[in-house]
Amino acid sequence: MENIVYKDGTLYLLDQSVLPNEEVYLEPKTKEDYFTAIKTLQVRGAPAIGIFAAYGMALLDGDKPELKAYLDSARPTAVNLSWATSRMLKAYNNGKSLIDEAIAIHNEDKEMCRKISEYGLSLLNDGDGILTHCNAGALATSSYGTGLGPLLLGKEKGYNFKVYTDETRPLLQGSRLTSYELEKAGIDVTLICDNMASIVMKQGKINAVLVGADRIAANGDTANKIGTSGAAILAKHYGIPFYVLAPYSTVDFGCATGDGIVIEERDPDEIKNMWFEKPMALPQTKCFNPAFDVTDSDLITAIITDKGIVRAPYKENLERILND
Amino acid sequence: MENIVYKDGTLYLLDQSVLPNEEVYLEPKTKEDYFTAIKTLQVRGAPAIGIFAAYGMALLDGDKPELKAYLDSARPTAVNLSWATSRMLKAYNNGKSLIDEAIAIHNEDKEMCRKISEYGLSLLNDGDGILTHCNAGALATSSYGTGLGPLLLGKEKGYNFKVYTDETRPLLQGSRLTSYELEKAGIDVTLICDNMASIVMKQGKINAVLVGADRIAANGDTANKIGTSGAAILAKHYGIPFYVLAPYSTVDFGCATGDGIVIEERDPDEIKNMWFEKPMALPQTKCFNPAFDVTDSDLITAIITDKGIVRAPYKENLERILND
Repeated sequence: MENIVYKDGTLYLLDQSVLPNEEVYLEPKTKEDYFTAIKTLQVRGAPAIGIFAAYGMALLDGDKPELKAYLDSARPTAVNLSWATSRMLKAYNNGKSLIDEAIAIHNEDKEMCRKISEYGLSLLNDGDGILTHCNAGALATSSYGTGLGPLLLGKEKGYNFKVYTDETRPLLQGSRLTSYELEKAGIDVTLICDNMASIVMKQGKINAVLVGADRIAANGDTANKIGTSGAAILAKHYGIPFYVLAPYSTVDFGCATGDGIVIEERDPDEIKNMWFEKPMALPQTKCFNPAFDVTDSDLITAIITDKGIVRAPYKENLERILND
Repeated sequence: MENIVYKDGTLYLLDQSVLPNEEVYLEPKTKEDYFTAIKTLQVRGAPAIGIFAAYGMALLDGDKPELKAYLDSARPTAVNLSWATSRMLKAYNNGKSLIDEAIAIHNEDKEMCRKISEYGLSLLNDGDGILTHCNAGALATSSYGTGLGPLLLGKEKGYNFKVYTDETRPLLQGSRLTSYELEKAGIDVTLICDNMASIVMKQGKINAVLVGADRIAANGDTANKIGTSGAAILAKHYGIPFYVLAPYSTVDFGCATGDGIVIEERDPDEIKNMWFEKPMALPQTKCFNPAFDVTDSDLITAIITDKGIVRAPYKENLERILND
């Protein structure tokens, strides 16, 4: 599965906002089409957003600095978005071919995912039961993904995994996206609610937990989708390896520990009302809706990056790999 | 809040199936009304079902043994239902007043809840942050409840708790019922998704976890709503007391350990389709949907029963309290 496809001068985007009920490939033509796709999560996942915006910078006519500012404003907190548009603007200012630069960004992401997938797969065995949380698959990147990369690559190589995916409340990326993506790839996948992770581990169904990362502190503490730290604590309790898979660029050496990572709180309606036919709680009922949590590095068996597999002590070993 | 009220010859039942969006008190008159109320979860929670059926046995005309068999068939696996109808039939055969017997069953449940609530409250402090899972409140019993009992009793006595309730996927008892019930009682309650339990504990918001129980093995291993064991493992990781609150009759001395407790698996549609406007996963996607899990007794700080507070070693101490 590729969610962003550039072919014969046209860009195609798999609309993630209507999955899994509809499979629609959009063909964005105007800058408004690109803006809307980013804003309304028709494209999501940091790498995928960056790749998509890079193609927009290449394919859309008009003033490029204005275009960059416009696209960036669709999701102001998405670091990968402004990183990609900045790189495209620099290429433009240097007189480079913009479509070549966008294709380069796209290919670099494929290469990064491929390396993470290969390193990750080296830690797994045929027949393993795997638990995953949220969606860090091909839908969030160019291909393979990070957290799901070893599973998708393994499938190509003939591995048979039995994957359990947390539904990942409140936004249900696990049910809507991960179970869809693995099902489409022909991988044996079973959907569970987040609170069923303990019982599947206790029943011996899980040999490893694979998750992505949004930000990794210098000491290895890892911010990822809400619920990741709980899965890590359960894995430690049951003696199951817990692996974080992410591009090395996710490591933020300016952030010493997880305490420095600010957790975004989102709209209570995501818990009480979103997706549902009727509200599930009273209008006045308060919700706490953090988007991420931080998994302490002592719960992480290894961090798998495109530069290699890193184990504790993370501070030293994350730095060492940078210098290699 | 009382969900079952007998007044001036009429029985009133708060319809739990339409909470929290509608508050409707039903007045069941026919045996079909009683059957439907049990079958469609207008009344739920083992004690509440038993009390409701007892009133049905008293208030409905007709052949009593036939009536018992008919009501029992509305939820064949509900042990408390057949226990209550059996007791009513015995009273009938002994020529006792049936309405007096139903009121006695109702009052005994109130007394049981009150004792559990008082024992539980003795372990809490004013201002405590509390995490709870599923619904073991007044809605599931006659009043106070078991898991929520100390909170509701504490409120009456002027305690200010800050309660976090897991939404409790897939059936959402935490959002639909617990947050509703605590909100109505004027208790400070915040709704979270199940996978947010780790972050609220890490942030120091939780001083104790309170849950109910469906079945307690002789060694203290406890079956309760799916997700309970995960909450217990998190509590142990963060050094937070984890309390199980249940009638002493929940202890099954015929069951040596939790390994002897069979876990019911329910319809995948509860995960993929129920409550939602549209399906959240592909039709062919498998789900694993266990209704309960077993919390190992070494994760439980104390089991709080109407006969007193029991701590490890559970096997010896659960037996001792029986003999007291």
